[in-house]
Amino acid sequence: MRLRELAAELGRELEGDGELWIDGVAALESAGPRNLAYARSERFAAAARASGAAALIAPPGLDTGGRPAIRSPNPGLDFARAARRLAPATAHEPGVHATACVDPTARVDPSAALGAGCVVGARSRVGPRSLLFARATLYADVEVGAECVIHAGCVLREGTRIGDRVVLQPGVVLGSDGFGYAMDEEGRLEALPRLGCVVVEDDVEIGAHTAVDRGTLGETRIKRGAKLDNLVQVGHNVEIGENAVVVAQAGIAGSTRLGRSALVMAQAGIADHLRIGARAFVGPKSGVHGDVGDGERVMGYPHRELGAFRRIWASLALLPGMVRRLRAVERRLGISARDRDDAEAGDAP
Amino acid sequence: MRLRELAAELGRELEGDGELWIDGVAALESAGPRNLAYARSERFAAAARASGAAALIAPPGLDTGGRPAIRSPNPGLDFARAARRLAPATAHEPGVHATACVDPTARVDPSAALGAGCVVGARSRVGPRSLLFARATLYADVEVGAECVIHAGCVLREGTRIGDRVVLQPGVVLGSDGFGYAMDEEGRLEALPRLGCVVVEDDVEIGAHTAVDRGTLGETRIKRGAKLDNLVQVGHNVEIGENAVVVAQAGIAGSTRLGRSALVMAQAGIADHLRIGARAFVGPKSGVHGDVGDGERVMGYPHRELGAFRRIWASLALLPGMVRRLRAVERRLGISARDRDDAEAGDAP
Amino acid sequence: MRLRELAAELGRELEGDGELWIDGVAALESAGPRNLAYARSERFAAAARASGAAALIAPPGLDTGGRPAIRSPNPGLDFARAARRLAPATAHEPGVHATACVDPTARVDPSAALGAGCVVGARSRVGPRSLLFARATLYADVEVGAECVIHAGCVLREGTRIGDRVVLQPGVVLGSDGFGYAMDEEGRLEALPRLGCVVVEDDVEIGAHTAVDRGTLGETRIKRGAKLDNLVQVGHNVEIGENAVVVAQAGIAGSTRLGRSALVMAQAGIADHLRIGARAFVGPKSGVHGDVGDGERVMGYPHRELGAFRRIWASLALLPGMVRRLRAVERRLGISARDRDDAEAGDAP
Repeated sequence: MRLRELAAELGRELEGDGELWIDGVAALESAGPRNLAYARSERFAAAARASGAAALIAPPGLDTGGRPAIRSPNPGLDFARAARRLAPATAHEPGVHATACVDPTARVDPSAALGAGCVVGARSRVGPRSLLFARATLYADVEVGAECVIHAGCVLREGTRIGDRVVLQPGVVLGSDGFGYAMDEEGRLEALPRLGCVVVEDDVEIGAHTAVDRGTLGETRIKRGAKLDNLVQVGHNVEIGENAVVVAQAGIAGSTRLGRSALVMAQAGIADHLRIGARAFVGPKSGVHGDVGDGERVMGYPHRELGAFRRIWASLALLPGMVRRLRAVERRLGISARDRDDAEAGDAP
Repeated sequence: MRLRELAAELGRELEGDGELWIDGVAALESAGPRNLAYARSERFAAAARASGAAALIAPPGLDTGGRPAIRSPNPGLDFARAARRLAPATAHEPGVHATACVDPTARVDPSAALGAGCVVGARSRVGPRSLLFARATLYADVEVGAECVIHAGCVLREGTRIGDRVVLQPGVVLGSDGFGYAMDEEGRLEALPRLGCVVVEDDVEIGAHTAVDRGTLGETRIKRGAKLDNLVQVGHNVEIGENAVVVAQAGIAGSTRLGRSALVMAQAGIADHLRIGARAFVGPKSGVHGDVGDGERVMGYPHRELGAFRRIWASLALLPGMVRRLRAVERRLGISARDRDDAEAGDAP
Repeated sequence: MRLRELAAELGRELEGDGELWIDGVAALESAGPRNLAYARSERFAAAARASGAAALIAPPGLDTGGRPAIRSPNPGLDFARAARRLAPATAHEPGVHATACVDPTARVDPSAALGAGCVVGARSRVGPRSLLFARATLYADVEVGAECVIHAGCVLREGTRIGDRVVLQPGVVLGSDGFGYAMDEEGRLEALPRLGCVVVEDDVEIGAHTAVDRGTLGETRIKRGAKLDNLVQVGHNVEIGENAVVVAQAGIAGSTRLGRSALVMAQAGIADHLRIGARAFVGPKSGVHGDVGDGERVMGYPHRELGAFRRIWASLALLPGMVRRLRAVERRLGISARDRDDAEAGDAP
């Protein structure tokens, strides 16, 4: 399409030749003469100038080397939209593959597409234009909304409900039994009830091999627009807020509630029964052992406020030297080893 | 059933109207007039009083607001048992789904149930009343005992043996090749033998997407009653003791032995060739690099004894201030920057 | 085979009776009178002497208790080769299982073997002697080279290309969508393009449930001979160097490049857009937040140079005592609580 048309659809200002024909999007480094690329910020200015792209999406003022540009305050967002416009998702033929097993009591919308070996259990429903790739498995009483994409090998256990436009990468498990046990007199573990379910609201995306346990009795709920990366663990009865983001290999233990637009970075862990506030930030690899307020930023294991974490981490580089310096001070003051031991054994700080 | 009957089956003392009819179990917050809920401890006393539950399982002395109660020293255990009594697991029709592939040399007990697309390899056996959900895959020479539940998408590689009443959540992999390599002269890696197997004893439960590698030559063994959560990694030749618990995303490296009733918390990692004692506690996110004795409690990265870890963690909050205070002390004593550097360069502590 | 023949094939020196007949390999502890075992180093000398093995592969000079031995400077490597020689991988009948679904436009080499329920999408290709176990799923436009082993339940999304002799353990996902989003004015997240692919070069092995995201626009590439363990996360546009090793549950974020023969230990995490040098070592559970040079060794969260990390970790044991000792020094010098607070509030170190 013409660059002019694309700028108009995006509602952004055009700079330079609007008649330029654009075939598709590409990265700055690999873009060719019919490609649109983008530069997120000044950090990418040199790459933008060196790029072979025909045109750029760039923030106002960024030097594009004279190339036509769509000027945007949010180049990433406009590039994402341009990419979808220029390379729409492949259409899939509606219908149920001959090798899929759909229970006679299930209802699959005729506009949905089910791949080879899919399984749809008793009383389950698949909504309009939803797409199940090969071997996706729905147990009994599962509800899938409209325009969902469920990749190969996903498993949705009994009673799971997912909204519209939900995307599940390969191997997502929804509704696995929670990890709650009671111990008997001999130390044997008996499972607590697993009678609840998982609810995933509209526009949620979940990464490969992420596991979401169902509620012990009530629900585990992932709210509208939340995004979970690969290999994430979500415990029973957790609630993940609207537009919250949980990055790869993070884990959230049972009954914890994550506020809207909270951001949990990779490999972080959050203990059970906590409240993590709206827009909170949990740094990578953090171990969160207490509530985190709205907008708070924490990091560390166990976690602290982000600024305190950074100050401590910087000070640690001095610690081995401080050990020796403190001894020198004690020697200078004539503090004996015995005095020192007495001090060490004193009251806690 | 009547509350009186339930109390009798549980062998616990009844308080209040035993003729009360109970339909099912529920959480304190959502329980209705025919539901039984439970309060684990005084921490839940307010929620217990506010609950709409008809009756409670509660420890002796907890105020139930006049509601009938089953008094228990272990309310979680009795609630788990009550839940199983009131909501028994769904029965599944015995038989092999038409789309399952069972090798002619395999033996599937006629009381077992195999779902759509299951695969049972050569010489494998499935015991009485075991239940394989859709697409569960047994390679050759696999043995599954009685009353097991194997969820959708599980893969049991060649030679895996599991006992009775084992539960595998969706996506469990048993018997993947271990991660052992030898390096040749050019830095290329050649795999060590993968000739061993995985043995899972009775009453073990394993969470979604947990991977258990088979022994290099001998066995990887998970002993009776152990419980593994989701996304756990178990290396080759590991032994996990009876009734041990490994929480989500923890990892145990090759040849390590975990004692009976040991507890490994979420996201912990244990290095290879270690012994972790009976009833040992490994705190969340710990990195264990040495043996841990029976009943010892450790935490941290790298791990320390739990008390030491806590004292250090508390002291760290003072460290940035100590950096400045030590300088002030040195200034007071007329210790120059050069003296300080000499002290820093001194012998290690 | 005769020990003599094996020593000749391995190109190593034989010591003792070369006519000894060897049936197979075994561990030192379980080896019997027709087994070959190995001792890696002097650490295993006692076990070697106590072993029931008929013969050993051992380094020169290690006391084998008079047993015949193949002397090797690299016993692990020679044992791996001996094991493959004595217990060759099971041959699989070539051909496509009746329940597999191969798109009419796909090409499967007649010498390849496809198990029950395999799916091969449009225009995909499977090379000579490659083996796909049950339910392996290739989307459209996937290329699999020669002599690959793809275990049950693996998913290779559209456009994935893997070379020769690649081994994928059960549940590997290649080509899942990357985790990149742009935020709109209302805090909603829109996915960045997912138009790239995954390329896996020859002789790569990937562990169970490891997920490799495809490039946003370009490639995610795993180079020749690299080995990835179970439950590893590889973000979009990552490059993993030749013969690099990534141990279980580690994660590598988007666009990071790992050099050749780099070693990333278990549960480590590496942030995005970094360069990790050739032969670099990233210790277990490390959190890497900056570039690491060739041959550098780092550890910690956030990471430091390995020596610095160890010195700090050792010094930390002294920290709680230092808190009290510094107070004692301040008291001795007549530094008041107020002086101390003033010092604490001073300039940062």
